[in-house]
Amino acid sequence: MKALFFDGSLRFEPRAQTPAPGENEALVRVLVAGICGTDLEILKGYKGFRGIPGHEFVGVVERVNGPYPGLVGKKVVGEINCGCGTCEYCRKGMEKHCGRRSALGISGRDGVFAEYVALPAANLWQVPAGAEEIDMVFAEPLAAAFEVLEQVHVKPTDKVLVLGDGKLGLLIALVLHHSGADILLAGRHEEKLALAAAQNVRTVRAEELGRGRAYDIVVEATGAPEGFDAALEQAAPRGTIVLKSTVAERTPAFLTKAVVDEVTIVGSRCGPFGPAVAALASGRIHVRPLVSAVYPFDDALAAFDAAGRPGALKVLLDFRTNR
Amino acid sequence: MKALFFDGSLRFEPRAQTPAPGENEALVRVLVAGICGTDLEILKGYKGFRGIPGHEFVGVVERVNGPYPGLVGKKVVGEINCGCGTCEYCRKGMEKHCGRRSALGISGRDGVFAEYVALPAANLWQVPAGAEEIDMVFAEPLAAAFEVLEQVHVKPTDKVLVLGDGKLGLLIALVLHHSGADILLAGRHEEKLALAAAQNVRTVRAEELGRGRAYDIVVEATGAPEGFDAALEQAAPRGTIVLKSTVAERTPAFLTKAVVDEVTIVGSRCGPFGPAVAALASGRIHVRPLVSAVYPFDDALAAFDAAGRPGALKVLLDFRTNR
Repeated sequence: MKALFFDGSLRFEPRAQTPAPGENEALVRVLVAGICGTDLEILKGYKGFRGIPGHEFVGVVERVNGPYPGLVGKKVVGEINCGCGTCEYCRKGMEKHCGRRSALGISGRDGVFAEYVALPAANLWQVPAGAEEIDMVFAEPLAAAFEVLEQVHVKPTDKVLVLGDGKLGLLIALVLHHSGADILLAGRHEEKLALAAAQNVRTVRAEELGRGRAYDIVVEATGAPEGFDAALEQAAPRGTIVLKSTVAERTPAFLTKAVVDEVTIVGSRCGPFGPAVAALASGRIHVRPLVSAVYPFDDALAAFDAAGRPGALKVLLDFRTNR
Repeated sequence: MKALFFDGSLRFEPRAQTPAPGENEALVRVLVAGICGTDLEILKGYKGFRGIPGHEFVGVVERVNGPYPGLVGKKVVGEINCGCGTCEYCRKGMEKHCGRRSALGISGRDGVFAEYVALPAANLWQVPAGAEEIDMVFAEPLAAAFEVLEQVHVKPTDKVLVLGDGKLGLLIALVLHHSGADILLAGRHEEKLALAAAQNVRTVRAEELGRGRAYDIVVEATGAPEGFDAALEQAAPRGTIVLKSTVAERTPAFLTKAVVDEVTIVGSRCGPFGPAVAALASGRIHVRPLVSAVYPFDDALAAFDAAGRPGALKVLLDFRTNR
């Protein structure tokens, strides 16, 4: 099969081995895939990944090696963490915290920038009838946005600040907006803030944010080390900071402020697919304006260039156009 | 009155002005006072405090300027934070987070290293009959230990690690031990660990702690910037870190680990006096072994030297012996 391969540099591999699904795994033919910030980090060496990257996808199940025969022929999206199945975390349904986990296209497992991918059948979620593939490819990042609501009780009376107007910050603002709380999205890109404003989210230029201690909840999604300080500055006493940014380096953090103000800091990663799939299928969260470009898979290298350009939002790879 | 005064150096002031209690304030004659780590930090310039330091005390109410006449003649301990009384935090009973608060002997208000001190009558807690003054002076630091239970649900099945065998770490371990959870206290001082072990707390030398991700709750009470990294190392995925240490500098923190493991970090400061007073009066928490020395107030400068020595635990100032 055709695949993108990374081994220090990214290149096309026209005759990659089609994956053989293991026990309880499905073979999925990829229809649309999304390029994520993590993919760009992987190209810079993140996690030392070697293989086929990519973890955001919509596909069709070709074959199942196990007790899910009803999935064959179904359109699916998929959770990216694959646990060992036997440790205490896997037994509690916390596969994403399994110490021996692999993660699709990120660590220990080939990803979706290929014509076919293998994934545990239990990781797959069926795409509801009528839902568009271009929307459903947002299931994985939108699930990460829903994880904020899974972890933190956002009350309708809360004042909430989302820091960062990148893809994840935008999705989080859109998700939280529906909670009924007073949401403010702060960012540095006029055109990205406008996308949120078009869906009735209040926005502000980050440099115009006042001095803080005013927000019950601050979601840090800047992707930058200095975002943590900004979040601490804005959080109210006894407030909550949700940390979404993963940065390679150590952050010089004035943690004493968190002690004195008794702030709670909640690390937040991947999230629940159920609500994300439902919100996308119903159109309650409208993600289409976040698509910067759709490239045929054959033009994937150009797509990566586009995804890395400043101001880019979601760049998609379309496998359907090659057939 | 006689008082200790700090204005860059610590000295005795034999003819300090006896404080005039403001509206709703009580004038308290100090019986016993404790020297806290914060007092030692103040002598190094913390908070830029100038005046009479000291915030741990037992005293007798001499006079009340307001509607608490029943307090006169009563033995009391007292909460240290004094709010403005009108802001949103004060109205919610969160005076300790009032932006205009003063703190007894720490910022904006003279403290208890003096024969008399003035404090809002509402801050005072009566000492139960029969309770010993030497024990009750621990009410303030023990309240800070109880704050952990006020903020975090410690379940009987939780594995809990307390990092740091200083005064606060010991008190926290003793408080948490009664929760029924599996508590392990890690520290660097054999003789301090022995004090906790004598009250049936499991202990371990910090350098013998295994590699981590094993504890549901980690309380960081080392007082050192590197304590945060150690706490992150030991916390289980989805675990909770309670931060107690206040350090002046920024901590280089690998916050991405908190994101990936979805760890919750809870800043924790002063706590509730009610359970602390009750535990001290009943002897459920036995604090006497934590007293390193008791000095007459006239020897306060020597007491400060003793409190600053490595290995010292609680050093008390006794005002009763001067009369």
